[in-house]
Amino acid sequence: MREAPVIAFLIFDGLTPLDFVGPFEVLSRLPGAHTRVVSPTGMAISASGDKLGIAVDCGIADLDAADILVVPGGPGARILMHDAATTDWVRKIAATAAWTASVCTGSLILGGAGLLGGCEATTHWSARDLLATTGAIPVARRIVEHPRLITAAGVSSGIDMALLLAARVAGEDIAKAIQLRIEYDPQPPFDSGSLEKASAEIRALAASV
Amino acid sequence: MREAPVIAFLIFDGLTPLDFVGPFEVLSRLPGAHTRVVSPTGMAISASGDKLGIAVDCGIADLDAADILVVPGGPGARILMHDAATTDWVRKIAATAAWTASVCTGSLILGGAGLLGGCEATTHWSARDLLATTGAIPVARRIVEHPRLITAAGVSSGIDMALLLAARVAGEDIAKAIQLRIEYDPQPPFDSGSLEKASAEIRALAASV
Repeated sequence: MREAPVIAFLIFDGLTPLDFVGPFEVLSRLPGAHTRVVSPTGMAISASGDKLGIAVDCGIADLDAADILVVPGGPGARILMHDAATTDWVRKIAATAAWTASVCTGSLILGGAGLLGGCEATTHWSARDLLATTGAIPVARRIVEHPRLITAAGVSSGIDMALLLAARVAGEDIAKAIQLRIEYDPQPPFDSGSLEKASAEIRALAASV
Repeated sequence: MREAPVIAFLIFDGLTPLDFVGPFEVLSRLPGAHTRVVSPTGMAISASGDKLGIAVDCGIADLDAADILVVPGGPGARILMHDAATTDWVRKIAATAAWTASVCTGSLILGGAGLLGGCEATTHWSARDLLATTGAIPVARRIVEHPRLITAAGVSSGIDMALLLAARVAGEDIAKAIQLRIEYDPQPPFDSGSLEKASAEIRALAASV
């Protein structure tokens, strides 16, 4: 990894903001990190059903390479996985990046770019069947790591993934220091954070929130 | 709680984005939630040392009441805790809100508004002494709950806090459904997320990330 790694985050209308901000909070703290927040058009994006607007640094046409590419998810990813301009760009950046990472349904975009054929990969629990249509082999794990490629499960899993990625690129001590800085010592008040742990009633209710 | 609760998030230049987006991701999913992202001036804000821009819905002058007020932290909170326009507004909103919550150094702003005098409260581990100057009694806990008032520790703790708050206002089943939706089943790759758990070397390194 270069001393001042360029870390590109692809964001888009219909983003789930925590998918993006979890890894951003971790990876933007890497020593010398030069972040680039990128959208397909270069315009600011709208997330959470137009409840939140996030600015970008540039459009995909303006960035030709990155050391790390992070692709978060959200409802918009189900559209972008079929958008040739976006998937062409993802494939181009991934070709030379040291690491390409996805969070949640961001893996659908990696799949749409043809990066996951025959690979085990993870995604949000609601999107496993759709991920399989890209040729990926969906697995119910929180993080799936290959050389240069890492996929994470739904939304909050991006924090775990980014800490692992920080260790890969900058060493475990830096990753642990970032974990302390963001005080990531999780103490969820409930234990219903995965399909396997949640009751049938909670699984049914989760479709509405 | 009303059927369509207004949830106000105060954001500002020098925000730590995960402080805000963790609770936003959880609370914006409450049934009927009407979110209002508010800055002191009504202008968009710049976070993470100008690496990230976030849009706002309005300025503090434009919002007179909310059902829930969430105040995240970041370096900018150490300035805003002394800004009378901001602390006056926080005190006004908190006076009628069902809940007032802080994440990380957001508690300094609540303290600056005079809301924490004689109360146990938590904050980022680096700000405990500063929090004490507001009359609060800093404690090293991840969440401190009082009637209508809840403070959370550093950065990522806002997710835990918001799930607890979701349960308080909408019931445990809704909170658990949101936990499943955001797949919050944390699996940190390391165990250095608190001062007590991190080694002396990691604690020293954390000042630089």
